[in-house]
Amino acid sequence: MAKEKMVEQITSMDTDFAQWYTDVVKKAELVDYSGVHGCMIIRPYGYAIWENIQRDLDARFKKLGHENLYMPMFIPESLLQKEKDHVNGFAPECAWVTVGGENKLSERLAIRPTSETLFCEHYRNIIHSYRDLPKLYNQWCNVVRWEKTTRPFLRTSEFLWQEGHTMHATEDEARAETIQMLHVYSDFYREALAIPAILGRKTEKEKFAGAEETYTIEPMMHNGVALQGGTTHYFGTGFCKAFDITYTDKENKVQYPHQTSWGVSTRMIGAIIMTHGDDNGLILPPRVAPIQVVIIPAAQHKEGVLEAAGALRDKLAESFRVKLDDSDNSAGWKFSQYEMKGVPVRLEIGPRDIASNSCVLVSRVTREKKIVSLDNIVDEVQAMLDQVHEELYNRALENLKTKTHVAKDFDELTDIAANRPGFIKAMWCGDVECEDKIKDVTGGVKSRCIPFDEEKLSDVCACCGKPAKHMVVWGRQY
Amino acid sequence: MAKEKMVEQITSMDTDFAQWYTDVVKKAELVDYSGVHGCMIIRPYGYAIWENIQRDLDARFKKLGHENLYMPMFIPESLLQKEKDHVNGFAPECAWVTVGGENKLSERLAIRPTSETLFCEHYRNIIHSYRDLPKLYNQWCNVVRWEKTTRPFLRTSEFLWQEGHTMHATEDEARAETIQMLHVYSDFYREALAIPAILGRKTEKEKFAGAEETYTIEPMMHNGVALQGGTTHYFGTGFCKAFDITYTDKENKVQYPHQTSWGVSTRMIGAIIMTHGDDNGLILPPRVAPIQVVIIPAAQHKEGVLEAAGALRDKLAESFRVKLDDSDNSAGWKFSQYEMKGVPVRLEIGPRDIASNSCVLVSRVTREKKIVSLDNIVDEVQAMLDQVHEELYNRALENLKTKTHVAKDFDELTDIAANRPGFIKAMWCGDVECEDKIKDVTGGVKSRCIPFDEEKLSDVCACCGKPAKHMVVWGRQY
Repeated sequence: MAKEKMVEQITSMDTDFAQWYTDVVKKAELVDYSGVHGCMIIRPYGYAIWENIQRDLDARFKKLGHENLYMPMFIPESLLQKEKDHVNGFAPECAWVTVGGENKLSERLAIRPTSETLFCEHYRNIIHSYRDLPKLYNQWCNVVRWEKTTRPFLRTSEFLWQEGHTMHATEDEARAETIQMLHVYSDFYREALAIPAILGRKTEKEKFAGAEETYTIEPMMHNGVALQGGTTHYFGTGFCKAFDITYTDKENKVQYPHQTSWGVSTRMIGAIIMTHGDDNGLILPPRVAPIQVVIIPAAQHKEGVLEAAGALRDKLAESFRVKLDDSDNSAGWKFSQYEMKGVPVRLEIGPRDIASNSCVLVSRVTREKKIVSLDNIVDEVQAMLDQVHEELYNRALENLKTKTHVAKDFDELTDIAANRPGFIKAMWCGDVECEDKIKDVTGGVKSRCIPFDEEKLSDVCACCGKPAKHMVVWGRQY
Repeated sequence: MAKEKMVEQITSMDTDFAQWYTDVVKKAELVDYSGVHGCMIIRPYGYAIWENIQRDLDARFKKLGHENLYMPMFIPESLLQKEKDHVNGFAPECAWVTVGGENKLSERLAIRPTSETLFCEHYRNIIHSYRDLPKLYNQWCNVVRWEKTTRPFLRTSEFLWQEGHTMHATEDEARAETIQMLHVYSDFYREALAIPAILGRKTEKEKFAGAEETYTIEPMMHNGVALQGGTTHYFGTGFCKAFDITYTDKENKVQYPHQTSWGVSTRMIGAIIMTHGDDNGLILPPRVAPIQVVIIPAAQHKEGVLEAAGALRDKLAESFRVKLDDSDNSAGWKFSQYEMKGVPVRLEIGPRDIASNSCVLVSRVTREKKIVSLDNIVDEVQAMLDQVHEELYNRALENLKTKTHVAKDFDELTDIAANRPGFIKAMWCGDVECEDKIKDVTGGVKSRCIPFDEEKLSDVCACCGKPAKHMVVWGRQY
């Protein structure tokens, strides 16, 4: 069934996955490099994916009662220093403003790497009574983390994200929020991005700076490498104590509120690329694709073809994001172009199709062709989009399953780490020394998380042989 | 008809307009101050206005073929310096990053005060042929201009805005874009914000740094002071020459493209406050109000009241942004609270209303009460929202007309400037010396614009008596 490969412009995934990635982000016109250290230009086609992500996620947040606001981008150094673990975690990667207008500033300002401290300063002003709780705030913004090695979407000095920051009267409520938002993320990954993932909590070593508990969603890329897809944090009352945030409860007692934060970023676009793409370029999950259907007329110079294609575009545009390419490029060029751009469904229509009141739909995943009647074209397109979503999800799930290995002891673990890309499930004693040793010996395999669906693979730590406390999913990461 | 004034918490507009403004932004919970120089926290209620503005404007831009993208926030100093007028205009008010991570940077990075230079650097990479034109790009982002005196929404070191940047093959096309986008802004001001404005072009002195022509929309605030509501710029080929951006035309000749930019910002929220507000607080134009209708139950402890109010909320929520306040605060407190927050329509419902299948609608502008049947409540609410919009617009137009004065000579001009707040229409010779003199003598009256609907008030400049070239609208500004 598959057609000849028409694009030879990009490196094959199997030859050089990193180069394939770089080729795809450029050729699919997702990004351009800028002259600024580690910063990318998110081009219209890439940004449209982000807009679709935002719209979907934002509705999910608001449905659960969250409100958006906007905090300043600057954090005075003294404010950042108020919570000790937090400043130690973030200060080394801050960009610092030292001159404003024509004057040297009396205090350096960090450009926010994350905004816990700013939210706390505000919460201190507005939280006084149990009536003021919960506060369920979120912001969509840019943040800066000064990275040495950068890569479009995956690791850039500046990136776009959302950061939720909430305050609750009780620990139970705050912990429930943390778990709830992790599931919002994983539902979104599954339903909108067609990406399966492992859910769990981070080990002590891998926690967010200042958090009591960090939860994570860890999808696996096509090459078996993990990408931390989103995290949610329970802070307890640590920041509240540092920032002196208190409220008076119903019994008139002064209490510290319990805090959470959670965020996902433009990294998700990197996850889409590396989970679904193939040697012909990008494959976009239909629910966030800027173009869901591209109409390519055949023999478009012939009478009636462009009119029929235009009418079809107008009809489909009521239900889908659709583009008609009636440029004078060849049909072959167009096929490659929209395959590179990962458009989920291609619709071909020419004189013979028009004569038989039909058209041809082609799936970007399987390249299967289906001749369908124009009478129920909306349903047919919807069905193929849903099918593409399912196929992408199932393929990614298969990849995740196939590339997840069990290691019982240290030899098995290091052997898998050296020879079989993917995740490794192994028991762990709970000591950071074993995490460090595994990372050192394998050259970078780290604990991804202690998954929610922990299994008992054996009684002892795969690293040191001492009694095991948890099963950990290990893996290399972007 | 008018009820007693129930809120005494804010300064009267007539007593102290500036203090009234500060009171409103705080009491209506639009902003909170942050510990950072000149930066504000846009609280959820204020940010929801911005989200409604964005949604509406963004749709208008896209309908005209514009695409969103995202540029880095950093501009290397050398890049900012490429266009001489531009750097002179903006460098003095930039915030500079000099340290990244733990290292001093080899080149300072400005945080974007505007992004012409970044767009030009990108356009240089992607524009080669006439086929690549036009480029119709826009971005929604934060920008920083280091201001000495700041005021929420009106003048802050960091603010949110959109900046459109377009490139065209011909001067005509670029100039048409500049005019078109000015009209998009003025349509939006009229249709969504209920704010009338004067449209025109800036004098040479008041142009944007680097522009050949700047167009502006100038609404008048309640107190007669102007607020520059939005600007569009035609750059000619100046930046393209500085950045070496060229394209090959159909005749295979190398040409410079013609450039525009245009922007509106969170200042618009300041314009809403100062155009429509009154001594009871904010009045929000219905089309951007976060809450369009607030339902306040009367005698809510009585059987069936909260159920009826809840059912009404659910019904109205299908068509409007609606809130039911069933808290245990008094009805009087709630009335003041939502008046302060500028909710356009209040809906009161109690046992007697329920018995007669009706409810009471109250307009925030006139405070008129209307008893309406629940049978066609959606139409009734829509009608009152439309009426509020019309009343706000007409009231603002009346203010603009009443406070626009004609000055024939310098004595008249200075007399009006000293005694009658508002705009002054006066003839002008075209010389910057007269602009400077008027500004100096009046203590701040500047040319707002040469309006599109210029009148010929006399033959001579109101300042120097030399032959007049144009009519100018003069005024003080925020």
